[in-house]
Amino acid sequence: MRLSARNQIKGTVLEVKTGATTSHVRVDIGGTVMTSSITNEAVDDLGIKVGGKVIVVVKASDVMIAVD
Amino acid sequence: MRLSARNQIKGTVLEVKTGATTSHVRVDIGGTVMTSSITNEAVDDLGIKVGGKVIVVVKASDVMIAVD
Amino acid sequence: MRLSARNQIKGTVLEVKTGATTSHVRVDIGGTVMTSSITNEAVDDLGIKVGGKVIVVVKASDVMIAVD
Amino acid sequence: MRLSARNQIKGTVLEVKTGATTSHVRVDIGGTVMTSSITNEAVDDLGIKVGGKVIVVVKASDVMIAVD
Amino acid sequence: MRLSARNQIKGTVLEVKTGATTSHVRVDIGGTVMTSSITNEAVDDLGIKVGGKVIVVVKASDVMIAVD
Amino acid sequence: MRLSARNQIKGTVLEVKTGATTSHVRVDIGGTVMTSSITNEAVDDLGIKVGGKVIVVVKASDVMIAVD
Repeated sequence: MRLSARNQIKGTVLEVKTGATTSHVRVDIGGTVMTSSITNEAVDDLGIKVGGKVIVVVKASDVMIAVD
Repeated sequence: MRLSARNQIKGTVLEVKTGATTSHVRVDIGGTVMTSSITNEAVDDLGIKVGGKVIVVVKASDVMIAVD
Repeated sequence: MRLSARNQIKGTVLEVKTGATTSHVRVDIGGTVMTSSITNEAVDDLGIKVGGKVIVVVKASDVMIAVD
Repeated sequence: MRLSARNQIKGTVLEVKTGATTSHVRVDIGGTVMTSSITNEAVDDLGIKVGGKVIVVVKASDVMIAVD
Repeated sequence: MRLSARNQIKGTVLEVKTGATTSHVRVDIGGTVMTSSITNEAVDDLGIKVGGKVIVVVKASDVMIAVD
Repeated sequence: MRLSARNQIKGTVLEVKTGATTSHVRVDIGGTVMTSSITNEAVDDLGIKVGGKVIVVVKASDVMIAVD
């Protein structure tokens, strides 16, 4: 499956923190860590676990820019 | 200003493509390129231009995970 | 590629309307039409065209509920 | 109230799973199931319950397209 | 129609700037101005024009918090 | 830090409701209350508490418009 989302970055799962309905997954994308908030169901369905190889995906319209 | 968004990644602007109301900004975050879709007004207001140092910002709830 | 996004619905492209930087794609998902706003680059990259078979993808945290 | 969101699809609630602050609502939109992640407060306020008639609402800029 | 989105704020349209596919609508919500980026189609469909009374709607999961 | 997000509104925290992974923060922006859903980690990191002065931040592409 190829996806319209412009941002697709390979990484390795560092942490999976599971809440009542929502999990937070932290992914190392090469020195930088990205945090994702997804459903527990998605974590189970994709078998996301610490050390697993994943792709972080973000739609361009959800990316902001800041300057110092 | 400190922001609740969990993903804040330093980078350098590679390209600014300006449309009628919406611009696409491509940022090198260390080998990986991220694409942001923001208003032309924001580009002007922040003085975003090629070669500029910026911070890419994404809210955790906008980050998805994929597996091969 | 399998994706954490909980909503993945098969459909057929009805219309592609291209702007300066952003395209609107209308997809028939079985009688119902969904509208997507994505980058022109994604339209080109995925070869999205009228009559093409696609999958509409939405993250659960972007879905609202209304009642009459 | 009429809303700018381009995607408004009628359906029937299949499941409401309530977490500590966030609920997941699954809605049958005619054979296809959509999953929504909303606040518990919204579930209570709108009286969302299994079997209830609802409208699934998604902004066009939150809809991605994938191809196989 | 009642909506799960927790943020619904009454205001008056100050400006509508129309692009090729996307419009920017600026709304005065009582001294503060909010900017919305929506499809041209939505602007036409809802008859949004300067001086019109509208409601600004934002899902809670799209609201960030910053501190100085 | 200056941010591309077009909506940045000053307010005072009225309530912080903490879940297992996600918190809901209610902010008074001058008579109107806005609700934000963010990670518990962000609440801790920014020291968000009742009575604190904050800025509510929303990207323009996440703002919808409704009419009665």
